[in-house]
Amino acid sequence: MKQFNPESLLPDWAEEFAQNTCGLCFPAEERMMLAIELAGLNVRHKTGGPFGAAVFDRALGKLEAVGINLVIRSNCSHAHAEMVALAIAEHRLSSFSLFRSGNSGYELVTSSEPCSMCFGAVVWSGITRLVCGALTEDAVAAGFDEGPKPEKWVEELEKRGIEVVTGVLREEAVKVLRSYTSQGGTIYNAR
Amino acid sequence: MKQFNPESLLPDWAEEFAQNTCGLCFPAEERMMLAIELAGLNVRHKTGGPFGAAVFDRALGKLEAVGINLVIRSNCSHAHAEMVALAIAEHRLSSFSLFRSGNSGYELVTSSEPCSMCFGAVVWSGITRLVCGALTEDAVAAGFDEGPKPEKWVEELEKRGIEVVTGVLREEAVKVLRSYTSQGGTIYNAR
Repeated sequence: MKQFNPESLLPDWAEEFAQNTCGLCFPAEERMMLAIELAGLNVRHKTGGPFGAAVFDRALGKLEAVGINLVIRSNCSHAHAEMVALAIAEHRLSSFSLFRSGNSGYELVTSSEPCSMCFGAVVWSGITRLVCGALTEDAVAAGFDEGPKPEKWVEELEKRGIEVVTGVLREEAVKVLRSYTSQGGTIYNAR
Repeated sequence: MKQFNPESLLPDWAEEFAQNTCGLCFPAEERMMLAIELAGLNVRHKTGGPFGAAVFDRALGKLEAVGINLVIRSNCSHAHAEMVALAIAEHRLSSFSLFRSGNSGYELVTSSEPCSMCFGAVVWSGITRLVCGALTEDAVAAGFDEGPKPEKWVEELEKRGIEVVTGVLREEAVKVLRSYTSQGGTIYNAR
């Protein structure tokens, strides 16, 4: 089989960031800070949209994978921060599902609530906790189309055993969205 | 930038299939046959789930990219047939969006209706036509979780200018789903 490695999506700065942080343990309150930091660095390095995400082991808080928005750079409309982080985590753990029974599962921490695609991807990933920073309306206010999610998308995830916490460090996350817009960052909706 | 090539996901037989077919023009009635053939070959080669997809240029019917389900093989819960086909098409066309104004856009032909993730991905891809074979209920009957789509998902796509045709060669598509189940193929839901 040929080599497919989703980490090859990452620009150099993000690869270095991952090398320096993956494997370290982060207390709950620092996990969103890390996702927002990734979003901000992506804007600063002009490598993509103002979104960052990370996958953590729930029991220890160990960082398994980071993701940033790489849609334009990679010519791939799927390369949202959440998708990149989940694909890298699955690749590193050599498993198409991050579901583990009991207390040993994984959580996805994302600087913004998921769009309609990432919402579905969250279900397939097998994570058991989703933590979001900015709300959908914040991303929309910054010009991003978030797509048609089911009206009660949080409840849909909860029905499937996925705990959802949202609005964590919302103001910090929104600052990054605004910094992208104010510096004229490309809004890469499909049309 | 490092090389990211979604075609590296494809097993050898599919790479050869793509080499022999991409660039050729297919009349409308043969496009679904090709997507179903891909699904069937994926089952026969035991390289993934019973799903196939392809991206065609709408004006000429030129095949731009093929996709098959590669979730288990690639340790990637996103590697649904539709996602693979769209990512390869975007990569080949060096564009994160397949949207083209006028009559020169692209269509995605898929052997089964999209799951909740692929539904969102269809919106971001910029395609203007989605053609499906088996219905969601057929995939569910075969044991696959299709995820929480908005109740009126077809209307949601149509509102965004994406034409949807479904149930094309449904019986042929369902036969492939059944062949996978009857030979004990793994149902790779997240949990």
